[in-house]
Amino acid sequence: MTTTRLEAFSDGVFAIAITLLVLDLHVDRGLPAGLLGGRLLHAWPSYASYVVSFLVVGIIWVNHHAMFHHIDRVDRPLLFLNLTLLLFVVAIPFPTALLAEYVREGGANSHVAAAAYSVTMFGMAISFGGEWLWAVRKHGLLGERTDLAKARSTILRFTAGNVVYLALIGLAFVSAPLTLALHFLLALYYVFNQLPEPQ
Amino acid sequence: MTTTRLEAFSDGVFAIAITLLVLDLHVDRGLPAGLLGGRLLHAWPSYASYVVSFLVVGIIWVNHHAMFHHIDRVDRPLLFLNLTLLLFVVAIPFPTALLAEYVREGGANSHVAAAAYSVTMFGMAISFGGEWLWAVRKHGLLGERTDLAKARSTILRFTAGNVVYLALIGLAFVSAPLTLALHFLLALYYVFNQLPEPQ
Amino acid sequence: MTTTRLEAFSDGVFAIAITLLVLDLHVDRGLPAGLLGGRLLHAWPSYASYVVSFLVVGIIWVNHHAMFHHIDRVDRPLLFLNLTLLLFVVAIPFPTALLAEYVREGGANSHVAAAAYSVTMFGMAISFGGEWLWAVRKHGLLGERTDLAKARSTILRFTAGNVVYLALIGLAFVSAPLTLALHFLLALYYVFNQLPEPQ
Amino acid sequence: MTTTRLEAFSDGVFAIAITLLVLDLHVDRGLPAGLLGGRLLHAWPSYASYVVSFLVVGIIWVNHHAMFHHIDRVDRPLLFLNLTLLLFVVAIPFPTALLAEYVREGGANSHVAAAAYSVTMFGMAISFGGEWLWAVRKHGLLGERTDLAKARSTILRFTAGNVVYLALIGLAFVSAPLTLALHFLLALYYVFNQLPEPQ
Repeated sequence: MTTTRLEAFSDGVFAIAITLLVLDLHVDRGLPAGLLGGRLLHAWPSYASYVVSFLVVGIIWVNHHAMFHHIDRVDRPLLFLNLTLLLFVVAIPFPTALLAEYVREGGANSHVAAAAYSVTMFGMAISFGGEWLWAVRKHGLLGERTDLAKARSTILRFTAGNVVYLALIGLAFVSAPLTLALHFLLALYYVFNQLPEPQ
Repeated sequence: MTTTRLEAFSDGVFAIAITLLVLDLHVDRGLPAGLLGGRLLHAWPSYASYVVSFLVVGIIWVNHHAMFHHIDRVDRPLLFLNLTLLLFVVAIPFPTALLAEYVREGGANSHVAAAAYSVTMFGMAISFGGEWLWAVRKHGLLGERTDLAKARSTILRFTAGNVVYLALIGLAFVSAPLTLALHFLLALYYVFNQLPEPQ
Repeated sequence: MTTTRLEAFSDGVFAIAITLLVLDLHVDRGLPAGLLGGRLLHAWPSYASYVVSFLVVGIIWVNHHAMFHHIDRVDRPLLFLNLTLLLFVVAIPFPTALLAEYVREGGANSHVAAAAYSVTMFGMAISFGGEWLWAVRKHGLLGERTDLAKARSTILRFTAGNVVYLALIGLAFVSAPLTLALHFLLALYYVFNQLPEPQ
Repeated sequence: MTTTRLEAFSDGVFAIAITLLVLDLHVDRGLPAGLLGGRLLHAWPSYASYVVSFLVVGIIWVNHHAMFHHIDRVDRPLLFLNLTLLLFVVAIPFPTALLAEYVREGGANSHVAAAAYSVTMFGMAISFGGEWLWAVRKHGLLGERTDLAKARSTILRFTAGNVVYLALIGLAFVSAPLTLALHFLLALYYVFNQLPEPQ
């Protein structure tokens, strides 16, 4: 089976997940004269949360796009691995909103919120790594233009983030802001392509 | 007419239906310090409901994908059969939420919720079976690569679930948890391909 | 320019419009034992509204699909005509909900609701007719496989509904249920193909 | 890498952003007899806001469509430039709703709302211009059928709106209605194609 519908379905899910984020931006109605500016400035965490979630989901989409540049055929296990990845991607706005709500407060609530975020990102990352692993290991899924040896050599580099995500679950209970900062650095790592170069 | 747009439209509907599920995950705002963890744990049925609905819709999508591996052309009746299927797929989150709310309570409410779930799944299943039946019976819709005799022989196997779904409507009024367990087993049945093998 | 992206974008809009309808199905939480059944039965207008809107949007999608079977190239005016069509399609759930709320009540509110529904359907219908008219009249947009003479001869048949939709705006102020019944008949008219047969 | 998935993903995001606008149309339930008509008329700013947002997002989509008529290959920077564009497109309904709420009131709130709208449109416009600039400047992204000299000559014309959008941020603090009127004229400017003619 070709990848056409898996890509179309995934693109649809990514597109909706990324667009639903705007529903968290609320319009305050009927404010007294002159209060709108202050109110909008005060709501900066919800804009920051919107931008961060948008970029995080966007980076995952770009890497999904890069991965399927190499994959030419799909089998049933790959379809289900991809579904699992999407299950975590779609859930990302939920822990992001938790984090936006509680990160400044400190204490136990901020730790729980950071842990929920780390768990979701870890689930996303192992599904993504698992999908790439399956595609590389299973004979006949990669396209002709992909050098199999190079593809194998990227597995470690591409899945290195998984270990960090796992560690961040633990770190969440020490410091939520530090956890968030490391998530940001890890996202930057995946802005750059960790898969074989397209040819 | 080719299947391109039917598949694109269906993928869109599946993608949105599966993504809207996240809207049922609510963020509690402004909780007192230390209460977030307990609150999140207490909300486990809504996460379970999210995961189950995601996988159920996902399994239907995978099978839809498998079915259209065999179908090359569509006619107007097939378009409307497919619309009917989508009507039930899109509705799935509604009885799922009912079930998540009332299954633990027992009694009449749990029976009604389980029956609503079974009715929706039955409607989905007969639309799906009807679509496959129409595609196999109508001359010229299946592609060359599909062995027509094999395709015919799968009709019984593929639509066997319909009888079970019908029975589960009745069973709902006996026991909601048992009904739910059987729905789970039936979903597992459809994780495995009941259509002809792709060639 | 080819029709690929116009079709993909339109399919996306149709898919989302049809899927958002499920958001109108509300789950009553925490009902006392034994009340769920009655509550669900009492909410039948919202299920009827869901099914009707789903089929109405579905029928429009099927006809859009049939129209683009004949159109091979798009120009900028066609893109904007198509946008106008989508503007009305996306709005359909709004007057449908109005009608579901007020049709049983009779009196002025039901007339206004029926008129809002008729206005929306009229706007949808003239945009659709305008798009087909433009495609047929503008040299070079239809594909080779379409008989231009036949395509021209369908214009009247295809746009005949527009006159009825216009009349239904007036009829709304006489009787909302009668208006609704005629909308149903008109939908049935468009279940059957009023465009040239695909070849 | 080809443009297929970037276009599919973008079409999905555009389609959802444009469809979510309907969620701002609210149905008043249980109004006393005869009050529905007046209530609907009173809510005209929300319909106007729906139509304007729909057309603004629609015009951006048409121009995105026109731009990718010329682009044949994408690289990783273009993917991220496109993500940035989508980030602003998806956000458009938020300042639009602010403007619909406060433009009639005058005073500081209307200025802030108009400035928020102008900032969003400016962000959208520089992302769009940046994407076109990158595509034209980077060797090998444009297709064969595009005249590179002509493409270069359109950069100024296409990005001319950016300067106006920037000026409108300042003008917002003088007059919100005037700012809105100029946004309308600028939208009309982009109804017409400012990119090379398709061949």
